[in-house]
Amino acid sequence: MPTISERGQIMPESPIRKLVPLAREAEQRGVNVIRLNIGQPDLPTPKEGLDALKSIDRNILEYSPSEGLLSLRKKLADYYHRFKIDVTPDDIIVTTGGSEAVLFAFMACLDPGDEIIVPEPAYANYMAFAISAGAKIVTVSSSIDQGFALPPVADFEKLITPRTKGILICNPNNPTGYLYTQKEMNLIRDIVKKYDLFLFSDEVYREFTYTGAPYISAFHLPGIEDQVVLIDSVSKRYSECGIRIGALITKNAELKKNVMKFCQARLSPPLLGQIVAEASIDASAEYMLMTYNEYVERRKFLIDGLNRIPGCYSPIPMGAFYTVVSLPVDDSEKFCEWCLREFEYEGATVFMAPASGFYTTPGKGRNEVRMAYVLKREDLERALKVLAAALKAYPGRTTE
Amino acid sequence: MPTISERGQIMPESPIRKLVPLAREAEQRGVNVIRLNIGQPDLPTPKEGLDALKSIDRNILEYSPSEGLLSLRKKLADYYHRFKIDVTPDDIIVTTGGSEAVLFAFMACLDPGDEIIVPEPAYANYMAFAISAGAKIVTVSSSIDQGFALPPVADFEKLITPRTKGILICNPNNPTGYLYTQKEMNLIRDIVKKYDLFLFSDEVYREFTYTGAPYISAFHLPGIEDQVVLIDSVSKRYSECGIRIGALITKNAELKKNVMKFCQARLSPPLLGQIVAEASIDASAEYMLMTYNEYVERRKFLIDGLNRIPGCYSPIPMGAFYTVVSLPVDDSEKFCEWCLREFEYEGATVFMAPASGFYTTPGKGRNEVRMAYVLKREDLERALKVLAAALKAYPGRTTE
Repeated sequence: MPTISERGQIMPESPIRKLVPLAREAEQRGVNVIRLNIGQPDLPTPKEGLDALKSIDRNILEYSPSEGLLSLRKKLADYYHRFKIDVTPDDIIVTTGGSEAVLFAFMACLDPGDEIIVPEPAYANYMAFAISAGAKIVTVSSSIDQGFALPPVADFEKLITPRTKGILICNPNNPTGYLYTQKEMNLIRDIVKKYDLFLFSDEVYREFTYTGAPYISAFHLPGIEDQVVLIDSVSKRYSECGIRIGALITKNAELKKNVMKFCQARLSPPLLGQIVAEASIDASAEYMLMTYNEYVERRKFLIDGLNRIPGCYSPIPMGAFYTVVSLPVDDSEKFCEWCLREFEYEGATVFMAPASGFYTTPGKGRNEVRMAYVLKREDLERALKVLAAALKAYPGRTTE
Repeated sequence: MPTISERGQIMPESPIRKLVPLAREAEQRGVNVIRLNIGQPDLPTPKEGLDALKSIDRNILEYSPSEGLLSLRKKLADYYHRFKIDVTPDDIIVTTGGSEAVLFAFMACLDPGDEIIVPEPAYANYMAFAISAGAKIVTVSSSIDQGFALPPVADFEKLITPRTKGILICNPNNPTGYLYTQKEMNLIRDIVKKYDLFLFSDEVYREFTYTGAPYISAFHLPGIEDQVVLIDSVSKRYSECGIRIGALITKNAELKKNVMKFCQARLSPPLLGQIVAEASIDASAEYMLMTYNEYVERRKFLIDGLNRIPGCYSPIPMGAFYTVVSLPVDDSEKFCEWCLREFEYEGATVFMAPASGFYTTPGKGRNEVRMAYVLKREDLERALKVLAAALKAYPGRTTE
């Protein structure tokens, strides 16, 4: 039998994936599994998007242009202008989800052996896309004690080698909910400029910032405009993860030409998703506010509740809809597995993402989990009760 | 400025792409550009698919499973059974178009430096996906004089090195319309078995075979079941290229696990497209026959017409909806460009794909073009008239 690729073999399986069958088994036993593990919002897709879907009146569902429909790119440009991101439709390439934007960014910027520096904990799939491109993710650690703030510049500089081609940030951050400050963004800009790097900036959660602190886009940073590769997606902000529409935004003409070769090879992003995305950008102010208020409330409720459980600690996330929580347990992978395999409280258990999947440094995040607050308040309330009970019962508890 | 990736730089731009702006300019001059260059069928998407779209009744357009909806995979398995392809829903991974199936097949099977042998002329984007994976496509030449039949086994064997990991075929073939015979498929199986290779088989045009000769799937070949990676797509058979739904099919458990890592990284194939694809599999027999008959008629009309133009020659394609034609010209890239830039006949010109883009051997296909017969008969008739007139007027004509 021919052997499969090494690249696939080294790609780590996410600790969440390993737990999925356990969650299914628990459900088969009749246990209510409260899923805090995945960023699939439960809020409705905007009516504008759903209506556009119903009123599609085409006889042929044909290819769209490789760079995406012009009408969508125009709408997106207007949308970004609201955030003072000064881009034109020509700077925007529509992709199949934010995922494809990350993959094509890496493919077009990085050669095998090239390195990018990413603050950890980080979205686990960046790693998979880097492996696909043969590139290496080098992590600089942020820590829960510092509220996951940007690590010191010296920590970045220690990691820079002749193969370093870029820095990747996710802002507001998945998994930590951290929002980089103006000062931190300036520090990032300075490193990017000094070492002539690309800045990959995943800003798909920009709608969700809660503290009044400003959202600073990578495109707000003067002097590195041609080095910024912005990653975006409509998935989270309009609760339409399934339509697979994202964007890669660059002002660098040479890079754009290069990215377009990858786009042309895959012919076209999804037509139907583009139609829904375009209409969703017209989502009413009421819808956006309803969504926002919902997350504000859930965030407060969840974080307050977590910090009241003895031994639990969650920093207050400033954005997105995740938080990383430290728990009084020996090993969060074991604990999450135990919750699904052996524990139930009043007929329910919790499915959390062990944070180890978001770190590349071995041993890091061992007592941390990521929770997504994409569930209704009643479910979060129940989840808090279950978690408190589970921590009391868990044999591997580390503190009293 | 940081440099872009070498991988993107070496990715050749298709000769069609270079002509796209010229076609647009011709249209701006008021010329009717008859597009024979691209495989975008003009036939309607089946009513079943369009109806399914209109009756989507969901409040949230959420992620689907990374491997695709189970209901779609069940329907696909039933569909393949009609062709005596013995696969289960578990063997089927839904992808974002056939394009993603090719990319993931290469990513999961090939490491940088690995080689696959592909008969040329071949679909140009295979090359792009190979470059993405860092792999090398090595071509074995088929020729128009032999009607693009499978090259002799000795020609394959000459190309086999320790890095050879697979053979890729497209059957029925894009761009030639060739349909491999049972005897040829057996020869391919023998090579695959003898040298322990993967067989990547792109069979997206299986619905379109015209000569009564049987369609032999790679999965019909006994003894290499675990080595076959079948590439499929609903795009062409249901005229729904824009929904981006394809499939990668493998019975090899280890490979499947590896492919799934790439699938999980990109989260999910398009939800809306999957709903349309699933319903389209129920397209009526009338629809399938109408489509089939339309291509049968167009094929006959186009090929007869081409072979009546002095100096033109097209073999009779047995399947798909393309043909590669030799023309009495010095250089088909120049000729195609000239047609768009300088020529018109009764207000119209033709946009054809220079065949050089389908060959990797330098100089090959220099007097050939690919035409897709995805246009109405009137348009094909007009295209033939324009082509005949263009060949008379073209300064680089090689024969009388």
